Amino acid sequence: MGKGRLEAFSDGVIAIIITIMVLEMKVPHGDSLEALQPLLPVFFSYVLSFVYVGIYWNNHHHMLQASTTVTGAVLWSNLHLLFWLSLMPFATGWMGENSFAAVPTAFYGGVLLMAAIAYYVLQQAIIRAQGPDSLLQRAVGTDWKGKLSPIMYILAIVAAFWSPGVAETLLVAVALIWLIPDRRIENVLSGTKAPAE
Amino acid sequence: MGKGRLEAFSDGVIAIIITIMVLEMKVPHGDSLEALQPLLPVFFSYVLSFVYVGIYWNNHHHMLQASTTVTGAVLWSNLHLLFWLSLMPFATGWMGENSFAAVPTAFYGGVLLMAAIAYYVLQQAIIRAQGPDSLLQRAVGTDWKGKLSPIMYILAIVAAFWSPGVAETLLVAVALIWLIPDRRIENVLSGTKAPAE
Amino acid sequence: MGKGRLEAFSDGVIAIIITIMVLEMKVPHGDSLEALQPLLPVFFSYVLSFVYVGIYWNNHHHMLQASTTVTGAVLWSNLHLLFWLSLMPFATGWMGENSFAAVPTAFYGGVLLMAAIAYYVLQQAIIRAQGPDSLLQRAVGTDWKGKLSPIMYILAIVAAFWSPGVAETLLVAVALIWLIPDRRIENVLSGTKAPAE
Amino acid sequence: MGKGRLEAFSDGVIAIIITIMVLEMKVPHGDSLEALQPLLPVFFSYVLSFVYVGIYWNNHHHMLQASTTVTGAVLWSNLHLLFWLSLMPFATGWMGENSFAAVPTAFYGGVLLMAAIAYYVLQQAIIRAQGPDSLLQRAVGTDWKGKLSPIMYILAIVAAFWSPGVAETLLVAVALIWLIPDRRIENVLSGTKAPAE
Repeated sequence: MGKGRLEAFSDGVIAIIITIMVLEMKVPHGDSLEALQPLLPVFFSYVLSFVYVGIYWNNHHHMLQASTTVTGAVLWSNLHLLFWLSLMPFATGWMGENSFAAVPTAFYGGVLLMAAIAYYVLQQAIIRAQGPDSLLQRAVGTDWKGKLSPIMYILAIVAAFWSPGVAETLLVAVALIWLIPDRRIENVLSGTKAPAE
Repeated sequence: MGKGRLEAFSDGVIAIIITIMVLEMKVPHGDSLEALQPLLPVFFSYVLSFVYVGIYWNNHHHMLQASTTVTGAVLWSNLHLLFWLSLMPFATGWMGENSFAAVPTAFYGGVLLMAAIAYYVLQQAIIRAQGPDSLLQRAVGTDWKGKLSPIMYILAIVAAFWSPGVAETLLVAVALIWLIPDRRIENVLSGTKAPAE
Repeated sequence: MGKGRLEAFSDGVIAIIITIMVLEMKVPHGDSLEALQPLLPVFFSYVLSFVYVGIYWNNHHHMLQASTTVTGAVLWSNLHLLFWLSLMPFATGWMGENSFAAVPTAFYGGVLLMAAIAYYVLQQAIIRAQGPDSLLQRAVGTDWKGKLSPIMYILAIVAAFWSPGVAETLLVAVALIWLIPDRRIENVLSGTKAPAE
Repeated sequence: MGKGRLEAFSDGVIAIIITIMVLEMKVPHGDSLEALQPLLPVFFSYVLSFVYVGIYWNNHHHMLQASTTVTGAVLWSNLHLLFWLSLMPFATGWMGENSFAAVPTAFYGGVLLMAAIAYYVLQQAIIRAQGPDSLLQRAVGTDWKGKLSPIMYILAIVAAFWSPGVAETLLVAVALIWLIPDRRIENVLSGTKAPAE
């Protein structure tokens, strides 16, 4: 089974997720600038989610480039990841409409945590499919970002009940860590030794 | 007529179906965990439908891989299948919002039944297009899953009026039967003899 | 400019149009079979539109197969066609929710009429781009379906104000005419002489 | 990293944006022609946005054709452009539902301004990725359209508070300027010297 259609289907689902999130930003009834004000938290949560889904698309793209065989386990791990990402519009809307209240923020962190775990499971499924000399295994290396993120999501979930501001800061921080371009996979693909991290 | 654009169009429609289903999960107004509670049946029906549409995408993918010619009959059988799948978001939302009441659950089973029939019709159209030495015919073999599923859907529809819990159990069971990876087509494609089933 | 991305973009837009139409079928609040009854006209108009959009996708597919060069005129004629098709969900919902009342039915016929004109304009743009020895020109032949359809749409629009039932019958009839597989283009592509029509 | 999946993902997102805008045109409750009247400004803003998104898709297509390498900067500049385009349905709905009132019209112009800036940033990222002998750099030439548009958007934003009619005229004018087919890139690609502009 080729990976082309898997990529195309994932691209389609991720493109829809990233775009329908904007539908949670309901058109206000007034025509003044003040009418937009209650939408500010919804807008901020939309920006954060747009960046997160963009990161996932980017990383997913790189991971599949280093992938060769598509097994049943890879296919279902991929659908499992798409499932958690599909909850992003709901979590984004709930957090935004409640101005980053404790429970919705923790819920949003929880969806990100589950997506991170699903991403890790998919990564392992691809590595297993590739066998002992896995290209992706070498590319991923120590995977410190992949290991740090779930910890920070858990911290954010806990912090949400104590200070939503701290929780948001943690969630923004994880996004920033991933925004820094990840050259590990590209390095291995182009034959360069991955730098020690 | 090539099958590339047929695959691309089907991928697009299935990707949209699997993603807009989440829009039936309306963002709640409260910001407490209790506000999520009424959404639990909607969430469970979303998970079930996500798995079902995932199975259809997966099987559709395999079936088209074993397909060679795209005739007018194949094309319209494919649109017929997509039509019934497109009713999944509606059926999912109705069943979820009514907490698995009798009629909506039976309706949901009915949509699955029609999709299963449409899938069978598409399969036969591809086999006819391939002629007497059909690759797909050999790959499908006895097709016990394809024959068992409609029977279980009908049982679920009947059971819904008597015990929705039994109906749900049957619908979950069919999904689990299909989740077990289907190696028949892959076997034939790779030249291995399909095991007797 | 290649036609690959034009096809992919059109496929995407048509896939979304055919799928979001189902969102006009709002999940009813009751859980009885009677709760579905008011949705029957919405459902029937959805089926009709699904078939129409399916026909457009099918014909669009064939037309682009017989196409070679993508000029600016082809590109914008294509977007013009997609524009009128994008009004189908709105027209479908309006006609369905008003149980085929006169004005919404005439409006629906009007959108189909504009889409038919846009399709003709696109066809001419492709033929002009191909020059005097146009493959598509030969494939289209007398194009009696393309010439009959607008006339029947106009009849349906007029009939809607006198008898919506007659209007619906005409709209269904046009769909049936197109459902009969169109072998003209395939014939020319495979070198067979197109039969006189 | 190939540009194929970048194109496919962008196509998907733009196709969804151009299609879900129509969802802002809510189906009216009445069945008379008068029921459509309040939708006229929504319809006009939809047409304008459809043309704008169509122009962006068209130009994006041409720009990526003249592109070779996809760097991290190109990828994120592309997502940045898609972000601003994703606000088009919201801005379109707000402007349309308020019949081109001052603030929503200025907001709409602001979204177009940000999209134009994002497009310019993406163009520069591709040129930088291509190095000193950039094909896109030669194709773009003096880029008078790209320089004129932001100025006209700013004028439209200012004019909105004084006369929304003038603002709309300016926004329509920019769209018309871009509708004139852009042969610069095609000229360079086919080896013809780009005409002095």
